[in-house]
Amino acid sequence: MGPPAEKITSLQNPRIKQLVRLRERRERDEAGVFLIEGYREIRRALEKGVSPKEFYFSPDWFLGENEPALIEQARAVGAQLFELSKDAFAKVAYRERPDGLLALAPQWKRSFDDLKLGANPFLLVCESIEKPGNLGTILRSADAAGCDAVIVCDPVTDLFNPNVVRASTGVLFSVPVVVGDSASVHAWLKAKGIRTAATTPHTTNLYAQTDLRGPLAIIMGSEQYGLSEFWMKSADVLVRIPMAGQADSLNVAMATIITLFEAVRQRSG
Amino acid sequence: MGPPAEKITSLQNPRIKQLVRLRERRERDEAGVFLIEGYREIRRALEKGVSPKEFYFSPDWFLGENEPALIEQARAVGAQLFELSKDAFAKVAYRERPDGLLALAPQWKRSFDDLKLGANPFLLVCESIEKPGNLGTILRSADAAGCDAVIVCDPVTDLFNPNVVRASTGVLFSVPVVVGDSASVHAWLKAKGIRTAATTPHTTNLYAQTDLRGPLAIIMGSEQYGLSEFWMKSADVLVRIPMAGQADSLNVAMATIITLFEAVRQRSG
Repeated sequence: MGPPAEKITSLQNPRIKQLVRLRERRERDEAGVFLIEGYREIRRALEKGVSPKEFYFSPDWFLGENEPALIEQARAVGAQLFELSKDAFAKVAYRERPDGLLALAPQWKRSFDDLKLGANPFLLVCESIEKPGNLGTILRSADAAGCDAVIVCDPVTDLFNPNVVRASTGVLFSVPVVVGDSASVHAWLKAKGIRTAATTPHTTNLYAQTDLRGPLAIIMGSEQYGLSEFWMKSADVLVRIPMAGQADSLNVAMATIITLFEAVRQRSG
Repeated sequence: MGPPAEKITSLQNPRIKQLVRLRERRERDEAGVFLIEGYREIRRALEKGVSPKEFYFSPDWFLGENEPALIEQARAVGAQLFELSKDAFAKVAYRERPDGLLALAPQWKRSFDDLKLGANPFLLVCESIEKPGNLGTILRSADAAGCDAVIVCDPVTDLFNPNVVRASTGVLFSVPVVVGDSASVHAWLKAKGIRTAATTPHTTNLYAQTDLRGPLAIIMGSEQYGLSEFWMKSADVLVRIPMAGQADSLNVAMATIITLFEAVRQRSG
């Protein structure tokens, strides 16, 4: 047991105000930290070696019986503990139905040099994803498909947005993600001998009739604008997913998972 | 031009109160109606032959210039018009950022006899989907994959939930959906000579190594419980999607789209 948790009841406490501010990207980036809310997400962060600096909890909101063990785990890796009143926690909670657990952890940044690629690299590159929920779902898809890493080009939403943390169901803590501009990403892939296959409706090549084996990066455009001109021109191959029905029935997250799993099918065959 | 729209400014107006109540399933089912909010959704509903009975609009919330034409279209198919004050519309709007357009339309119910199947039927069967957002996404996937129809077994969320309407981006108005209990659905599929392939982690058959051509219904379990014992025993074949990473990286909507598009690939081959 370490020192007791500091108690906070005032909504005017500077830490409370700081936690609210950290919902803004600028504030997160300046402070170099981000928030992880909820039992499942914090447990996964701890499992994956994320060390919270601060841990806020409020027993009035607890849903189960495992919270004290999680708090002790966070303390063991060096988190400073704060016990909040019900009202104070309601103010800092981002979720509609809080469970009384909120951790503040340092952001990290991976570079291309940090990436460990397998013998047959398999990467996902996403351009300028706007919606945090889509980015979270895309990270889950890359995890399920066994991608070595995800590369986010020219990001619009930041990786540490609370909705990315949540929608990724903890995958953010395990799948390596590198952020870069499209030109650098393209140059790096070329240098590594990794072929690029970009999805777009503007081609006649069907994705499932295109060879997706060997060192490969699948390139996905943004929600609103689709594939950029840069990748339209730079990708080694363009592929199309055949679609029945309404033109917009497949969103970017859905198109990503279809393409990834076709690659998995071919690569395991 | 028909009669002028009736103006409503009071938050106590019975129609305002009724619209708020219609967010509840029981109220919707009793009244036999549902709500369609937003320009895109209402336009698609009108395109697909849905005839709103009532149409509520509030110019203070309009985002563009095409709203009057949409209102006239609704009037032309018999909708009674109501012009709401900004406050009154804020009260009935379901969305966080309303666009001043809300239609009330009659629910419909399709039976198996209504379904028109092609020469090589391709159906999706979902068990007890709980989250409206998932059901909406699943409807979009079935549309994109060109399914003849979606069958919802033992539903938990109702088809006419505002979040299903929204998440389906209008596909609810075009893809035929039938609701039934699992035993009846199974009997009907048998009678029609449609083979059933159910997805579950509890099999060694890989989905992509299983023949998904010919008359086929893909069966998906619920979010929380997966495939029911009924379908585990009754399906003609069980198939598994191979997964790397975290056990829960694929949710039911993602698993559905992967399976549907593998079937599309095989069936178009």
